Amino acid sequence: MSLLIRRTSFQSLQRHQEGITTSTGIRIRDGKLRILFYCLGGISLGYWLYTKSNSKVVAAEPSKLDIVTEESARLWHKTQRTDLPTYKPEQVQQHNTHENGIWITYGLGVYDVSEFAPNHPGGDKILMAAGSAIDPFWAIYQQHNSLEILQLLESFRIGNLERPEGTVIDDEEESSPWSEEPQRHALLKAASQRPFNAEPPIGMLGEQFYTPNKLFYVRNHLPVPNIAADDYELEIEMEGSSKQLTLKLEDIKALPKHTVTAAIMCGGNRRSEMTKFKPVKGLSWGAGAVGNAKWSGARLCDLLQAQGVPPNEKNHVIFEGADLDPTSHPYGASIPLSKALDPRGDVLLAYEMNDEPLTRDHGYPIRVIVPGTVGARNVKWLTRIVVSDSESDSHWQQNDYKGFSPSTDWDTVDFSKADAIQAMPVTSAICSPLPDEHIKVNDKGDIKVHGYAWSGGGRKIVRVDITIDQGQTWHVAELEQENIPDGRHYGWSLWTVHLPISKNQVGRNVEIWAKAVDSAYNVQPEKFENIWNLRGVLANAYHKVKVKIVK
Amino acid sequence: MSLLIRRTSFQSLQRHQEGITTSTGIRIRDGKLRILFYCLGGISLGYWLYTKSNSKVVAAEPSKLDIVTEESARLWHKTQRTDLPTYKPEQVQQHNTHENGIWITYGLGVYDVSEFAPNHPGGDKILMAAGSAIDPFWAIYQQHNSLEILQLLESFRIGNLERPEGTVIDDEEESSPWSEEPQRHALLKAASQRPFNAEPPIGMLGEQFYTPNKLFYVRNHLPVPNIAADDYELEIEMEGSSKQLTLKLEDIKALPKHTVTAAIMCGGNRRSEMTKFKPVKGLSWGAGAVGNAKWSGARLCDLLQAQGVPPNEKNHVIFEGADLDPTSHPYGASIPLSKALDPRGDVLLAYEMNDEPLTRDHGYPIRVIVPGTVGARNVKWLTRIVVSDSESDSHWQQNDYKGFSPSTDWDTVDFSKADAIQAMPVTSAICSPLPDEHIKVNDKGDIKVHGYAWSGGGRKIVRVDITIDQGQTWHVAELEQENIPDGRHYGWSLWTVHLPISKNQVGRNVEIWAKAVDSAYNVQPEKFENIWNLRGVLANAYHKVKVKIVK
Repeated sequence: MSLLIRRTSFQSLQRHQEGITTSTGIRIRDGKLRILFYCLGGISLGYWLYTKSNSKVVAAEPSKLDIVTEESARLWHKTQRTDLPTYKPEQVQQHNTHENGIWITYGLGVYDVSEFAPNHPGGDKILMAAGSAIDPFWAIYQQHNSLEILQLLESFRIGNLERPEGTVIDDEEESSPWSEEPQRHALLKAASQRPFNAEPPIGMLGEQFYTPNKLFYVRNHLPVPNIAADDYELEIEMEGSSKQLTLKLEDIKALPKHTVTAAIMCGGNRRSEMTKFKPVKGLSWGAGAVGNAKWSGARLCDLLQAQGVPPNEKNHVIFEGADLDPTSHPYGASIPLSKALDPRGDVLLAYEMNDEPLTRDHGYPIRVIVPGTVGARNVKWLTRIVVSDSESDSHWQQNDYKGFSPSTDWDTVDFSKADAIQAMPVTSAICSPLPDEHIKVNDKGDIKVHGYAWSGGGRKIVRVDITIDQGQTWHVAELEQENIPDGRHYGWSLWTVHLPISKNQVGRNVEIWAKAVDSAYNVQPEKFENIWNLRGVLANAYHKVKVKIVK
Repeated sequence: MSLLIRRTSFQSLQRHQEGITTSTGIRIRDGKLRILFYCLGGISLGYWLYTKSNSKVVAAEPSKLDIVTEESARLWHKTQRTDLPTYKPEQVQQHNTHENGIWITYGLGVYDVSEFAPNHPGGDKILMAAGSAIDPFWAIYQQHNSLEILQLLESFRIGNLERPEGTVIDDEEESSPWSEEPQRHALLKAASQRPFNAEPPIGMLGEQFYTPNKLFYVRNHLPVPNIAADDYELEIEMEGSSKQLTLKLEDIKALPKHTVTAAIMCGGNRRSEMTKFKPVKGLSWGAGAVGNAKWSGARLCDLLQAQGVPPNEKNHVIFEGADLDPTSHPYGASIPLSKALDPRGDVLLAYEMNDEPLTRDHGYPIRVIVPGTVGARNVKWLTRIVVSDSESDSHWQQNDYKGFSPSTDWDTVDFSKADAIQAMPVTSAICSPLPDEHIKVNDKGDIKVHGYAWSGGGRKIVRVDITIDQGQTWHVAELEQENIPDGRHYGWSLWTVHLPISKNQVGRNVEIWAKAVDSAYNVQPEKFENIWNLRGVLANAYHKVKVKIVK
């Protein structure tokens, strides 16, 4: 029996709680109501078949439906649905506006997404496919190939697409934009393969002050460009001025070389912890979507000053990468001009990472490093810089990487009302022990705990407090950090603490909590409930790790 | 019966919990043990007289002691204790070092403070009185005249001071440094009279974007100097340079005039809420130790640049006021030179507050305004500026206005290990309704709640969330704020929200919670337990107000 979910509202999918299944009612043709049960992660565990009469449920019986897997869901759009009509491409094409309804096709499926489109996280991207195929988009945005999204799509299915015989339904075509992806270190745990997004094991992350390049987390939004050093060009423009500067790689390398230690952190770092409270949309990052490196390159402030760019509090600097979306738009982001012009802002056109040339995954040949600022603004494969009186109009600046109130959902969200994330809030994580680890008490009667802490905006970490008794007793950790004045302290701090263990704690489970304090004495919030947001960014609540103490 | 508490350890006084009385055992001469009961605020409610045998309590009877009041405690040092010996001034004088023990006198009392002195919040100040009278010190630091401190002092009493007959024991002498205090507005609620520290009623504070000068909170550390405009001089020096600049008031006014809106907040604002969790040392401020004003004056960066002061990340700018302590040392504080030199730092030598000349309580004729930085660095009656390679060595920079872990107590605190507070963390407060207010639901079925929010370091408030159901639903408030770019947004934000009230909430008590989010997406911590610190500073947990909803 095929799975049929019609007119499931997108919003109802937001309300699933961990451990609590919520239901979505679907009236189908036989006049019976099927209630599909979800649990965390969108895995449907089965459904109940209800008989309804006068809006009241009068009988219910459990289904015999097998558990639906992501693998089986990936076949749905390649399958003819015998219960639905077949449409010609020309018929689909007529539904390409809000007035006429928005239909799209994927493989053999025809879908009516009129109600869903306004709430799509990708904003107007979905409208580009209105009346036609989303296949080329999803070939790039492969994060759509999740069970939850495939189920959602199938819930909008209204028919089958008539195709000439012999049409191959496959996104693995020869011209795949993914054919030139670089090789990655086997230890990087992928949150998604295409685009490649991966983090190192948290246990290794806290071991070295400078994160090894090969283990540094990778956050790609699109396929990785392949740029030869000789072909590389960077354009620098000022809006409203005909002046334009084009720099080759050797021109950038000829400028004074500046080195800064900076941690780069993904806006979604630690999202998987926030998700436990309530699901969010986004890659499931652990606490490893951060790394600390020594970056070297030319200072952007020197370049802009040489170009005569005047200070203007209201201006922005837009960065564009060589990574292109299916409509040939580049990845883009912007930062305030004041940050770019400030010598203490340390914004670099970096060509080295820990004294080695950038790798392709990290932006070869040039990546802009914006210390203290969310990873998403540290644009890789940098090809264009524009000084502008407005922010980047890219999806990632306008409709992503923003924070919202916990009560804002996909029905009520208005991305234009929130500020794009720039400087990141204070955070910390426990790198060792690992969750569920069994920890032996050492000869001194304690256990060693260590991890990292960091705050955005150049704010130094001034203290990390650790507790194993829910905050009754806090132990102050020793910090390993650079001796750099506050305001320009962009590197992370590693911390270590030896927690005394009482006899009655041996043999028992304890929960270790970490909280960091930065130089503005901002502190992490206790828990995720009150900072939850629908995109799962800014997940900086206390890091909590449960372990067992053993003899 | 006189109250006798001998060798009460200072530390035991730190452990009192709200609603929980803790005890302090004192063996006295008759071989019986008296247990003194404390409750919050140090009011002793009575004691139990125990008969002890072989370290076991074998009998106990309640005392008939009246409740000790602050008024009665103020007479103790003016009273001969017949149970104690009498010492000559020369005998007291011999106890003026750690080796010989530290004795002090106050009125007719002789006290052995050897054990206490190292833990005194005022650091080495107490050693200045070793072997002699603390009377002139306490005439200035009148915050000592609290029941808790007077009881603590009496617990150290070892004798009576022999004085020539006819000696008047009175701190209200004609030469009192307090004789020239200015008149204050009757609505200012004093946390202490000498030095004068007061805040406006919280209900009035949120009503105007610019806080009226007369209602602006006053935080004085010492008596208010009385400076005639013609006599005023400001010295500017660079350590290691013979160059010195002296400016008269008219010289400062002749410099380009710059205006900035900045909220100034006391480091102890909202301390009274933190105290409810566990007592701290400090004035009991409500949420009104903050105000927002337009400040005008000369920019310090212009002055320092004209003097050729080079940027140096490691240097500081020390400020000294005309307010002097009993040893003729001025109030002092310092900020990083990078803040002082940054044109976006907006540090002013201010002579106007909301377009009027400064009042005496606010630093007439010149106060340094350090926007975004804790009030204590905004030195009033500014007389000296020194560019130095070290911070101010003043008590207030070195041994006060610093944050610590909740588990740091007066036994373990090391002020040299913590960073002096500069930029303040994000905070907010509800100005209306007031605690315990009965709120009528309006015609639209909601109640109006408003207040202020602010963050240090020029970070703009980006959102204020309000809940009346413990965070199940958050309502985003409307903000009233200046249109100033982030990083230089030093003024506060007023906020208003209309909270929909359900029928079942009418007639019930609800608790309103406010939390603000700043431009670095830092957010207030949920509660005070985990940010508690022994000085009660940085009290920025959610503001919570209980009210009753009525028809």
